[in-house]
Amino acid sequence: MKVGILGGGQLGRMLLQAAANYTVETHVLENDPECPAAHLCNQFTCGDIRNFDDVYRFGRNLEALTIEIESVNTDALHRLQQDGVRIFPSPSTLSTIRDKILQKQYYVAVGVPSPQFIVTQSIGELAGHADFLPAVHKLATGGYDGRGVVVLPDETRLPQGFDAPAVLEKMIRIKKEIAVTVAIGQKGETALYPPVEMIFNNDLNLLQYQLCPASLPEKILWKAEAIALAVARNFNSAGLFAVEMFVDQEDNVWVNETAPRVHNSGHHTIEGNYCSQFDMLWRIMLGYPLGHTGVILPSVMINLIGEDGFSGNAVYEGLEAVLKIDNAFVHLYGKKETRPGRKMGHTTVLSSSPQDLTHKANLIRHTLKVKA
Amino acid sequence: MKVGILGGGQLGRMLLQAAANYTVETHVLENDPECPAAHLCNQFTCGDIRNFDDVYRFGRNLEALTIEIESVNTDALHRLQQDGVRIFPSPSTLSTIRDKILQKQYYVAVGVPSPQFIVTQSIGELAGHADFLPAVHKLATGGYDGRGVVVLPDETRLPQGFDAPAVLEKMIRIKKEIAVTVAIGQKGETALYPPVEMIFNNDLNLLQYQLCPASLPEKILWKAEAIALAVARNFNSAGLFAVEMFVDQEDNVWVNETAPRVHNSGHHTIEGNYCSQFDMLWRIMLGYPLGHTGVILPSVMINLIGEDGFSGNAVYEGLEAVLKIDNAFVHLYGKKETRPGRKMGHTTVLSSSPQDLTHKANLIRHTLKVKA
Repeated sequence: MKVGILGGGQLGRMLLQAAANYTVETHVLENDPECPAAHLCNQFTCGDIRNFDDVYRFGRNLEALTIEIESVNTDALHRLQQDGVRIFPSPSTLSTIRDKILQKQYYVAVGVPSPQFIVTQSIGELAGHADFLPAVHKLATGGYDGRGVVVLPDETRLPQGFDAPAVLEKMIRIKKEIAVTVAIGQKGETALYPPVEMIFNNDLNLLQYQLCPASLPEKILWKAEAIALAVARNFNSAGLFAVEMFVDQEDNVWVNETAPRVHNSGHHTIEGNYCSQFDMLWRIMLGYPLGHTGVILPSVMINLIGEDGFSGNAVYEGLEAVLKIDNAFVHLYGKKETRPGRKMGHTTVLSSSPQDLTHKANLIRHTLKVKA
Repeated sequence: MKVGILGGGQLGRMLLQAAANYTVETHVLENDPECPAAHLCNQFTCGDIRNFDDVYRFGRNLEALTIEIESVNTDALHRLQQDGVRIFPSPSTLSTIRDKILQKQYYVAVGVPSPQFIVTQSIGELAGHADFLPAVHKLATGGYDGRGVVVLPDETRLPQGFDAPAVLEKMIRIKKEIAVTVAIGQKGETALYPPVEMIFNNDLNLLQYQLCPASLPEKILWKAEAIALAVARNFNSAGLFAVEMFVDQEDNVWVNETAPRVHNSGHHTIEGNYCSQFDMLWRIMLGYPLGHTGVILPSVMINLIGEDGFSGNAVYEGLEAVLKIDNAFVHLYGKKETRPGRKMGHTTVLSSSPQDLTHKANLIRHTLKVKA
């Protein structure tokens, strides 16, 4: 079977590592021939994933296609789907999710709790909603990894909002941020991964590390699972869905957003779960039975982010020290250039001891740095 | 760092899956551009690993080289070593190991117990050693995966011996076959993997599956570890060494043979151990600290071998059923053609229950078949 991936970053790279356990022929489309995934596929095509012709030409000889980023040419995907190429997720799912206005309207339509919101088309329109603050203003399209999102605690900040179609979302008093990945097979069968819990630095609003399984009372766990399942199933699309949620001070669970693909919140599954998120997506695309989402050992995952103030050829400080940690698994994405905030790798730690997980997560966070 | 692999089979494939966790530039030399590893490296070179020029040309622009099979051109490796390329294992280690006469003499020289033997140069010379039977006759060079080995229980079988340099080895009354993998870093640091135990079908002398850790009394474990360490260290070479041993009816431990590379007996380490054998070899070659060889969960590994009577395009019978087993990890090597006895894949099962391991091993062995 011939399967293509739109995008050749770290998600593509890890997908291709997993693909090598099967007999699939892999293709990657990306405009950088030195991207992390370029050398790990059967056929690399240099091209723009946002360009209709590039995507259409890439996809028309393939049997299935997936994405590692939402910002792809969905028109080409709709056309390819008509031609009989199987797309994971479906192009209409992708169209809904990549526009935050449509995504929010989808949550309302399927009856899933997500923070109350107002659609704004311009900064002028935003100015009329001072009484809706505190809120978060999110660009309808084009935002990614924190870009296109601005917090508006009070009306003095209104000028920082977006002068373009956007969603103004009521601020939630967050107790916890969690994510549940849902796998949906081609026959509609489903599997849920145990929830992960994001631990933030409250001062910097920076993700410090991610614990799995999340520590949640059973009632919240059930709510979260029911919500994630409802979000994923109602797209009527096979694929993998990372549903990010807030738990508020009153233990309500709210959907924040959904990624219809392999996702940063599932990296720990490579070592921590019987079937990794990457293996799972191959099983879905190849029409195999879904894998077992159970935990082998509890895990913590620490992103390795390009250090502020450094741009250029990546140098990994503290790598030896982290490689010496018995129960740590280091993943470097092979990006030659580092930039502040760029995802350069991650480390997963497995342990049955929560103290060990927290201790190692902090140790690794303070030890391993990417400089230039 | 630029690292090359001589050979592009399944061992190369799994090495390259592990390489994608680091920032190494990978090269493969193999004469089949459709081999399992060809599409997973930065640079594939089509050439003969037994040819001096091909190996020398391939290696001279690399910083390090390793092998996935012993039958490579060692002259070229000696020359590359003189040129400053680091070779894992050292070419002299390889020369010793690939000639069974030299390998046996090495065990004697380093004081490690291995079955008593006589060197025979011809079938005529062999005929004079009827009193040494029962014994096993092993071709000095060119044997692989059971070829080049013949059992001589009594003198009526002598005509089946080899008319070429060979080793006639006293038959051991085997209770168990085990293997210990030893990692040796560039500074001489060492790490031992827990022993694995091979379970054979006594009628067919066919490996059924492989358990890890082996079930051994502590005294035998210590002997096995000491022997494996002595075998590996005395080569004075960095690298990975799979030391295969017999335990006899009197609980003596004997070295059978050594593979100075990643090896079939270490496949379970991908999921079963903190640091897989493939990750370990990269750590050694890249000069990183050795990884932790500890067991995450006990494991069983079942080879997937081309079914007798089938040659041609591989078809995997029972694959769905095995993919449904919760704690099984399937690896297919992506070989298009199957042949009787060809290694086409393997499955590892993790479980803390020995009964579960044995049960699943037998289930998988009887379910998953490669036909044409």
